[in-house]
Amino acid sequence: MESNSNILPRPLRGIIPPMVTPLLDRDTLDVAGLERLIEHVLAGGVHGLFILGTTGEAPSLSYRLRYELIERVCGQVKGRVPVLVGITDTSFVESVNIACKVKDAGAQAVVLAPPYYFPAGQSELLEYLKHLTPELPLPVFLYNMPSYTKLVFEPATVRTAADFPGIVGIKDSSGDMIYFRRLQKFLKNHKDFSLLMGQEQLLAEVLLLGGHGGVCGGANLLPQLYVDLYNAACLKDLPKVEALHEKVMELSTAIYKVGRYESSFLKGLKCALSCVGICSDFMAEPFHRFRRAEHKRIQRYVKELGITPER
Amino acid sequence: MESNSNILPRPLRGIIPPMVTPLLDRDTLDVAGLERLIEHVLAGGVHGLFILGTTGEAPSLSYRLRYELIERVCGQVKGRVPVLVGITDTSFVESVNIACKVKDAGAQAVVLAPPYYFPAGQSELLEYLKHLTPELPLPVFLYNMPSYTKLVFEPATVRTAADFPGIVGIKDSSGDMIYFRRLQKFLKNHKDFSLLMGQEQLLAEVLLLGGHGGVCGGANLLPQLYVDLYNAACLKDLPKVEALHEKVMELSTAIYKVGRYESSFLKGLKCALSCVGICSDFMAEPFHRFRRAEHKRIQRYVKELGITPER
Amino acid sequence: MESNSNILPRPLRGIIPPMVTPLLDRDTLDVAGLERLIEHVLAGGVHGLFILGTTGEAPSLSYRLRYELIERVCGQVKGRVPVLVGITDTSFVESVNIACKVKDAGAQAVVLAPPYYFPAGQSELLEYLKHLTPELPLPVFLYNMPSYTKLVFEPATVRTAADFPGIVGIKDSSGDMIYFRRLQKFLKNHKDFSLLMGQEQLLAEVLLLGGHGGVCGGANLLPQLYVDLYNAACLKDLPKVEALHEKVMELSTAIYKVGRYESSFLKGLKCALSCVGICSDFMAEPFHRFRRAEHKRIQRYVKELGITPER
Amino acid sequence: MESNSNILPRPLRGIIPPMVTPLLDRDTLDVAGLERLIEHVLAGGVHGLFILGTTGEAPSLSYRLRYELIERVCGQVKGRVPVLVGITDTSFVESVNIACKVKDAGAQAVVLAPPYYFPAGQSELLEYLKHLTPELPLPVFLYNMPSYTKLVFEPATVRTAADFPGIVGIKDSSGDMIYFRRLQKFLKNHKDFSLLMGQEQLLAEVLLLGGHGGVCGGANLLPQLYVDLYNAACLKDLPKVEALHEKVMELSTAIYKVGRYESSFLKGLKCALSCVGICSDFMAEPFHRFRRAEHKRIQRYVKELGITPER
Repeated sequence: MESNSNILPRPLRGIIPPMVTPLLDRDTLDVAGLERLIEHVLAGGVHGLFILGTTGEAPSLSYRLRYELIERVCGQVKGRVPVLVGITDTSFVESVNIACKVKDAGAQAVVLAPPYYFPAGQSELLEYLKHLTPELPLPVFLYNMPSYTKLVFEPATVRTAADFPGIVGIKDSSGDMIYFRRLQKFLKNHKDFSLLMGQEQLLAEVLLLGGHGGVCGGANLLPQLYVDLYNAACLKDLPKVEALHEKVMELSTAIYKVGRYESSFLKGLKCALSCVGICSDFMAEPFHRFRRAEHKRIQRYVKELGITPER
Repeated sequence: MESNSNILPRPLRGIIPPMVTPLLDRDTLDVAGLERLIEHVLAGGVHGLFILGTTGEAPSLSYRLRYELIERVCGQVKGRVPVLVGITDTSFVESVNIACKVKDAGAQAVVLAPPYYFPAGQSELLEYLKHLTPELPLPVFLYNMPSYTKLVFEPATVRTAADFPGIVGIKDSSGDMIYFRRLQKFLKNHKDFSLLMGQEQLLAEVLLLGGHGGVCGGANLLPQLYVDLYNAACLKDLPKVEALHEKVMELSTAIYKVGRYESSFLKGLKCALSCVGICSDFMAEPFHRFRRAEHKRIQRYVKELGITPER
Repeated sequence: MESNSNILPRPLRGIIPPMVTPLLDRDTLDVAGLERLIEHVLAGGVHGLFILGTTGEAPSLSYRLRYELIERVCGQVKGRVPVLVGITDTSFVESVNIACKVKDAGAQAVVLAPPYYFPAGQSELLEYLKHLTPELPLPVFLYNMPSYTKLVFEPATVRTAADFPGIVGIKDSSGDMIYFRRLQKFLKNHKDFSLLMGQEQLLAEVLLLGGHGGVCGGANLLPQLYVDLYNAACLKDLPKVEALHEKVMELSTAIYKVGRYESSFLKGLKCALSCVGICSDFMAEPFHRFRRAEHKRIQRYVKELGITPER
Repeated sequence: MESNSNILPRPLRGIIPPMVTPLLDRDTLDVAGLERLIEHVLAGGVHGLFILGTTGEAPSLSYRLRYELIERVCGQVKGRVPVLVGITDTSFVESVNIACKVKDAGAQAVVLAPPYYFPAGQSELLEYLKHLTPELPLPVFLYNMPSYTKLVFEPATVRTAADFPGIVGIKDSSGDMIYFRRLQKFLKNHKDFSLLMGQEQLLAEVLLLGGHGGVCGGANLLPQLYVDLYNAACLKDLPKVEALHEKVMELSTAIYKVGRYESSFLKGLKCALSCVGICSDFMAEPFHRFRRAEHKRIQRYVKELGITPER
């Protein structure tokens, strides 16, 4: 675990964008777009990179493409920031398989949501973690995302799991702040356990009251906005935090709310990235890129928000 | 498609057990148990076999093991009944990959639930089906299982999809009989479209009022009970239907309700199969076989229900 | 309890329409419409009348109006069939108050769903029943309606409650047939405990396999259709049951599915009753009668279904 | 409206405890306890009092008792702080009835959640508000409590309703902070519209980032803790806010989490109030006070938290 994890701070702090996966078609990476995206995000000063999460459409991608992505990202980032890679899978064996590739490629950590087909109980989930983590060759961040996985990591489960070797933090995307506050209380004595917020609209309050950082989809587009917010919160500069939080709210209300369905945030984000020339807006099935009318609305928002195209 | 599907009746009728997957450990098939199970079920007179569904723990298995299972089952069944194989996957590309193996192995049809990580809308789901079905080399049964996939195939969606080439039926495991009755009404003019019930407690009423058959987990254990019920319903022998329905209720109330959690039915079923000597009760993660106390309760029920061990 | 209940059969069987409440405005009964509706329904041969249920918009009515309705209905029915009256309330004390008025007015039974504001547990619910039923002066039917009350009467709870003096049956409107079949199994030895189906699309199968009757909203409009179905099922005349079941499906698919929102069934039913001249379509807040476009669609359906206006 | 509302600030700010309703039995107020509770809370410096909400068990009380409570509270508070009274009801007519009594008793505002039996759509809800508010003689606070009412006040609905005469604020008890942040964004230009948080675990962050106050159940017990937190947030004293927030978390994790079921917070709160000698712990049906074991745990927590008994 040494060579990979020596650049992984404990606890991990800061802004770790959940990277979108640029695609040219159903099973082909947009390689040039991927390179631009990585450099764009790193130039914004982010503290890590999380690939193959929900925003990365991981479950929709073929295993072949996931492996290619892992290789390319690690090859390009070259240790400038820690790379975290999602290994969530309904199959225990496939999660172990992918974790080994992640380690070989040189990434620093893996990210794991519960297996998401069968509804399991908390004791089943805990036993699953107990069996799985010894087989994983890298530090593990838990990933709480109950609206997609149907299963929450209860605070008591996280407290127990935090003592398993290798489990180093949690990314909470539930949007349930009472849950997050309870997590903090339950893990008060685990000083190096990372508590990361997956919902950017809640980033400001998390940082002001004891959270360690954010996994913010919008940081694909405007990495510096989130990094500035993080820095302002570190300095307890409340007026600046409030002003930047309002910009985050504007972005999320505009870009993520075009079109029907829950996939709006993903479609809007990829569309905006393509509007500013970073990468393709092709989406993996079962989703499809915005059509002309929605594309125009996103284009207008991008202009209104003052997001400047990449040269 | 010809060689595989020439034994697939339209509409498919009767009892098609969703086969459990006998395992020795996390990534090893119980080959001898599998052979016994197949012969046990076929001896009961069933009208087809459905592998790699929910009862088969498909999403929890490695791809390697799934492929091995497909080969072995098709090789042993040898066309005695149609074999249906689950190809549900969050990744479009992986669903196509597995469908090609299914065809090569000689199975007769594939079974497809919606991709189950991202919550999609009905129009997204329909577009997904429109793109996917032309790439599938075998007839397709839809699989409605909203409590696991978070997404229902709305009756209007099914009616539209029923006109896509290759879509030949639906297995409904929602447990929502009003939904099933609406399906029947919406598909009244699709005479060769199969309407199959996935909840055995509702098999009797489905057969009495126009449904074509059942995909009954309990038929792993007692195939003849369900076949007898099917035959009684065909003959409109109401008293016999009622008596057999009561036996089904007894089995499901006993065997499927031991232990906490939603996985009880699966654990109970595998445990009972092991009690009668058919196959191992090892379960794929995130589940684990019953411990001593629950095992004893299942053993007692098996005896009370008069299920005789295999020699 | 004697004078009221001497006409209440045990178990109660047959068709018991959940009567709509005809209104002229927010707090005024449509008295003439109410009289026509009662006679229309009784002329169809129904076996009882259930007022102040969900279809009767009970929770939306003032207590004053509820009392007036109870008096008028009992006064007009005059014991021709049993009258059942909903007393569901979030307040224990108000449920007792209304039950006393029900008894005084001469009705035969009360109907009780769980208190529906606070989410209670099953043991809390059972204790509530234990405290409430001794204070009720009439036989009690439980009313399972979890989508509205957020709380299900679990089969084990019903089995325990079935031994409390005064509890004589249950109306299940959950639409969950597996639940209903489990209820039947749990109450097998309570021969005089009524099992009534509240979803008319499931009436046929309930009657064919052991249920006692139905509380069918459509019987406000076409009482004889449901009574005929009941009689056909008693005679085990399967083809006739199937034909009548299809008519029920047609009615429910047409009349109950106009307009958005879950209130469609209620708005459609009241609108259809007004189309055939039985009573006003005014609805209690928070609902409002259909506007012109929806009204026309209902009018067309009424004609297509061959429902003839009252003279 | 004048005489009542002249002490209602716009926007209303600060700590407004949702008062528990002290009871001696099912339909009898604990009058002495009520007097002690009011004085205890006012002595803590709170900025208003909210009676007949969820914490006040309003839906479980008889109308007679609700009226008595309104009279007694207004009579005792005598304008020292604004009194807000819940008028939520499934019946429009009963909401108007109770609002008139509230006005006559001298309270300053009413609080209204959606009618909670029938599931309504947003346009139905908006029409309901449009009809109801002109009939209410006092300013209205909306009350968002979807887990109990099954219906959310969507941000767009609130923005429209904020322009209706008489609607002056909202209390959000959803626990959904993204919702709360969206509300703030949608109501940015309604400077005198109160945004109040109903979940005390989220009070600190709400106050730090633009919210106006909190309706905190724990303020029945420790009013000064919440008032201190409010004052610290007004002064942007982040370390003090954080320290007081931790006390709030301790209280809520201890007192509200004894016993099973969602009613734990209510039972724990009433039990703690009785432990310190303020009022009886009798609960309205369908709930019942804690038994000996749970009572002892609460007693221990009360001691550990340093809550001193009233003399």
